[in-house]
Amino acid sequence: MYILGGTSATSLATVLSRTLNQPLLKTTFKRFPDDEFYIRLEEPIEGEDVLIVQTAYPDAKIVELLIMQDAVCEAGAKRISVILPYFGYSRQDKKFEEGEAISARAIAEHISIHADEVITVDPHKEHILEFFTTPARSCSAVPQIAEYLKGKNIDLVLAPDMGAKDRALQAATLMGCESDYLEKTRIDGTTVKIHPKSLNVHGKTVAIVDDIISTGGTMANSIKELKHQGAKKIYVACTHGLFAGQAKEKLTSAGCDEIIATDTIESEFSKVSVAPSLAQALVHLA
Amino acid sequence: MYILGGTSATSLATVLSRTLNQPLLKTTFKRFPDDEFYIRLEEPIEGEDVLIVQTAYPDAKIVELLIMQDAVCEAGAKRISVILPYFGYSRQDKKFEEGEAISARAIAEHISIHADEVITVDPHKEHILEFFTTPARSCSAVPQIAEYLKGKNIDLVLAPDMGAKDRALQAATLMGCESDYLEKTRIDGTTVKIHPKSLNVHGKTVAIVDDIISTGGTMANSIKELKHQGAKKIYVACTHGLFAGQAKEKLTSAGCDEIIATDTIESEFSKVSVAPSLAQALVHLA
Repeated sequence: MYILGGTSATSLATVLSRTLNQPLLKTTFKRFPDDEFYIRLEEPIEGEDVLIVQTAYPDAKIVELLIMQDAVCEAGAKRISVILPYFGYSRQDKKFEEGEAISARAIAEHISIHADEVITVDPHKEHILEFFTTPARSCSAVPQIAEYLKGKNIDLVLAPDMGAKDRALQAATLMGCESDYLEKTRIDGTTVKIHPKSLNVHGKTVAIVDDIISTGGTMANSIKELKHQGAKKIYVACTHGLFAGQAKEKLTSAGCDEIIATDTIESEFSKVSVAPSLAQALVHLA
Repeated sequence: MYILGGTSATSLATVLSRTLNQPLLKTTFKRFPDDEFYIRLEEPIEGEDVLIVQTAYPDAKIVELLIMQDAVCEAGAKRISVILPYFGYSRQDKKFEEGEAISARAIAEHISIHADEVITVDPHKEHILEFFTTPARSCSAVPQIAEYLKGKNIDLVLAPDMGAKDRALQAATLMGCESDYLEKTRIDGTTVKIHPKSLNVHGKTVAIVDDIISTGGTMANSIKELKHQGAKKIYVACTHGLFAGQAKEKLTSAGCDEIIATDTIESEFSKVSVAPSLAQALVHLA
């Protein structure tokens, strides 16, 4: 088996190659002067299983993936597994209004064409897996995030909303602490108070665990409120750190003590690798 | 029939709507803060024919097209025609070396999925039309370019190489002047002379007509040589003006008197619209 690490998952592919003890495929990537993508596989892969690792975000990385799949297919790979550490467009997973595209489905459909299976990490909603027309599954980065947070003496893991409470519970269970989720209460006509559903954060070290951080706006508001309610320290952890715009500044100035993300999207906050979770999801290929 | 003009062909779609006397579909486009694309069709199109006009270049515009096709399909269009004024990746139309992708085929295959037909303009090589798994045809911008150049008293139309000589001949025929193609002759070990195969450019007003101008490097060298050989004026015309990097400066400083491109890629040089050619290719839909 060969591992083909795309340009948006170079570091994760390298860790995965070590974890699975399988070689990285030698590959040349470049962009032409008109910015078109070029790939050349430098080793024969005819009859081999190939694992393509590429985060499908932003748009250019989706096009790279489709072209990489063509190259691997053209070179005669026996079986193509596509690892999507982060699956872009996963939040446009239904028509919120008439006339919209179901973008997650659109992208999933195209990725499926030259893939014998797809594996992604912590999809925003599990049902997006059904958009792939090839077998698709997901694995979770929560065990790795929990492992990292274990050294931080966390008292309480919070989900940013009710929909995410199972993820927080899972992390808390692995860390041996309590969990709860944040709720919004309208105090008067305009003011909204954000607070844990049942527990009190006063004097506690808190970790808010989410799947995606995009602009960080909602998260920054939650941090401010929890600090106001007496939280001692606040860690913010997510699987997919998009950190769009001024997200980092927003979170830091709101009082966040540390930002933690995984390597599904490579950034300065990629402190945790999802390679162990992916390796476990791939045992059938070993 | 509705015309859906994508973000990379707004102006062409508007001209095409007037030429065909068919309405533009009201549409909302935006980019989310994480740069993901959003589209909403603001009018019902169930049972209607829809003509999507979108230049598939650069990468983000390819992804937009795939998502637009999903939206139009989801909204129940009867028939989807995709107009690709410029088809990105068309020059990666074969494996030049083992291990490469056939990128033109890869992109064509994905665009075909939700298209009942595809129409493109002056493809770099005609055989790329076979990469589409849905009926695909092309039309030519040469008549429109020739029409524009008619007012310039051109004596000679030159193709940049032998492969493009038919295009130059066609333009010259429409303009009522001579045509030839440029040839490279190695004078000694290192020096290469670029010159018309048979004709002399001395004192003549020349138009070099090409399909694509990317970095403009080769074109700039040809201009310099022709000026050196006494060409009076040099016009450079192309269907697809990518003008990558410093192309404009290179062409101008080489001595080009005017740069002409069409609206397949919108730029300051889009002086000619391909709408009449597209309209003619679409008569079966009227």
